[in-house]
Amino acid sequence: MTIKDIARQCGVSVSTVSRVLNDRPDVSPENRRKVLSAIQRSNYIPNNTARDLVKTKSDAIGLVVRGVSNPFYTDIIRVIEEQVTARGYTLVMQQIGTCDDEVKRGAMMEREKRLRGLILLGGRSDYTPQELAPLNIPYVCCSYDNQYGTLPPDSYASVSIADEEEACRAVTELYRCGHRRIAALVSGTEDRSISQLRYQGYVRALAAHGLPLEQELVIEAGSFDIRQSYLAMQRRLLAGAQFTALFAISDNMAIGAMRALREAGRRIPEDCSVIAIDGLTVSDYINPTLTTLCQPMEHMGRRSVEILLDMVEHRGGPIRETAHTTLRTGESVRDIS
Amino acid sequence: MTIKDIARQCGVSVSTVSRVLNDRPDVSPENRRKVLSAIQRSNYIPNNTARDLVKTKSDAIGLVVRGVSNPFYTDIIRVIEEQVTARGYTLVMQQIGTCDDEVKRGAMMEREKRLRGLILLGGRSDYTPQELAPLNIPYVCCSYDNQYGTLPPDSYASVSIADEEEACRAVTELYRCGHRRIAALVSGTEDRSISQLRYQGYVRALAAHGLPLEQELVIEAGSFDIRQSYLAMQRRLLAGAQFTALFAISDNMAIGAMRALREAGRRIPEDCSVIAIDGLTVSDYINPTLTTLCQPMEHMGRRSVEILLDMVEHRGGPIRETAHTTLRTGESVRDIS
Repeated sequence: MTIKDIARQCGVSVSTVSRVLNDRPDVSPENRRKVLSAIQRSNYIPNNTARDLVKTKSDAIGLVVRGVSNPFYTDIIRVIEEQVTARGYTLVMQQIGTCDDEVKRGAMMEREKRLRGLILLGGRSDYTPQELAPLNIPYVCCSYDNQYGTLPPDSYASVSIADEEEACRAVTELYRCGHRRIAALVSGTEDRSISQLRYQGYVRALAAHGLPLEQELVIEAGSFDIRQSYLAMQRRLLAGAQFTALFAISDNMAIGAMRALREAGRRIPEDCSVIAIDGLTVSDYINPTLTTLCQPMEHMGRRSVEILLDMVEHRGGPIRETAHTTLRTGESVRDIS
Repeated sequence: MTIKDIARQCGVSVSTVSRVLNDRPDVSPENRRKVLSAIQRSNYIPNNTARDLVKTKSDAIGLVVRGVSNPFYTDIIRVIEEQVTARGYTLVMQQIGTCDDEVKRGAMMEREKRLRGLILLGGRSDYTPQELAPLNIPYVCCSYDNQYGTLPPDSYASVSIADEEEACRAVTELYRCGHRRIAALVSGTEDRSISQLRYQGYVRALAAHGLPLEQELVIEAGSFDIRQSYLAMQRRLLAGAQFTALFAISDNMAIGAMRALREAGRRIPEDCSVIAIDGLTVSDYINPTLTTLCQPMEHMGRRSVEILLDMVEHRGGPIRETAHTTLRTGESVRDIS
């Protein structure tokens, strides 16, 4: 089955078939219907040619994962893949480092892989319209949002938690348990990622409870990596920092810091309480089990795909959704009040 | 730019262009060269049509991940994606449950996604030639091998550790530290996966050192899941099983079991030593840090892609490679000799 066969069968010219295949507008609805229906029928012939003809419109959904090996993403990726596949699309995934530009990579994938839509898993929260201009397909920001308001609110789609508020809630939980010297472990305080947002939540909580912001208690790991977190905490402890509680912006970073605390002879939670945000599965098995605000990863992955495909299939526009965390009480926070 | 334009430009018929596009043999080398070169030139025009014309041969490499959310795979997937992308191919990933059939899924993907090659990450070790018949493209088994010898040795490609030997080595390490009552935590003892192979290594090590195989000390979790491992260990401890050391077939399962041991009041390593196989990053941060045989995940992922693309690009045939683990000594094993 060739394009010529389809043309003959439909009584149209080869270039008409070509126009339909290339999804161009200059074809009458009648001819488009005839050609697509002929192609559909030819699909029953299991040969490559027939498939090639049918596969003219790409079914590729791109997923750019920013932050290689971030265990927080594992569950979300699983759900996104499941949902994309179940809806008849093909997931094309690429992972980039936290220093790479997810929008540039997405735009490159859009052209190279002929994407229909794009999910960005992790990214900056301050895109400008100019930066996003290379993207010509619907996209959803998963697990982050344009929280610096640099985009018109109805111009993009996202599914995320309110990072600043949730961080504020975590720190307030430590305050409620009587802690007054509360350290924060972050990737960066000005990196325009969720790290900065969660750091702002920490600052807000301190202010709300009348606690001073002390630079000695702000620990920057420079990345979300478990080893960098371990080393950053180790250095700060060697420098003699004193605190009774730690807020880590992610479970993974908390686990790194907990080893440094332990090695410095600080027992958790007797000498130092630890709270984090994310809710990794493994955090519920470590010693002590970690108290953390769990993000609804399954829900976030599913909603990201639903919102994206509604846009791809012209059923809806961009939607911004805020998900809420659930406190999972582990053994890592002690009430000293 | 349409097929007709290409045909006119090359002085050939539209059906000749179509035959070239569909990679059919009935075209003269001269015409094929002319058409492909015209298409190549048209690539400089950034419109969909030109791209559609160029994208006639698929660049898709499939990855079927068996065992949803297995953290052991996270690093390997990252490396595979990096390598596949760097070599100009597109990675199409699908994940399936441990009860699903990876070969069937791969064969389905081969047709639906027009794969050029396939990497199976996790699977059974006893495929028959009949079961593999639906696969018409090169494939590599990553992290497992046809260790039951049901396939001709030169008919398939794999990159894996020698599971039975490595398990034997782990158990021997416990024996060397004076342990004589050594329990094994497995997914299943007869599931034809790496679980059975590592269990066989446990049995072999016991025999080699003159220790009896006791059913009380074989703990089957029924899956590789951390929670199921925790629950299985909890049940066995409640039943009063006595042992001074545990061999877990995976880090993830060990972490689940360690929580159950701790909750039952058994200190690690004072009351019970633990050793595992895999070498997850997180295992080096938990309390106590886990002694484990690390698989060279980076190497295994990279070699899987290299071997596959050598086959896809007709530079080489199927190769079976055995990788070796490295003992990472943590705090979880105590010498009681």
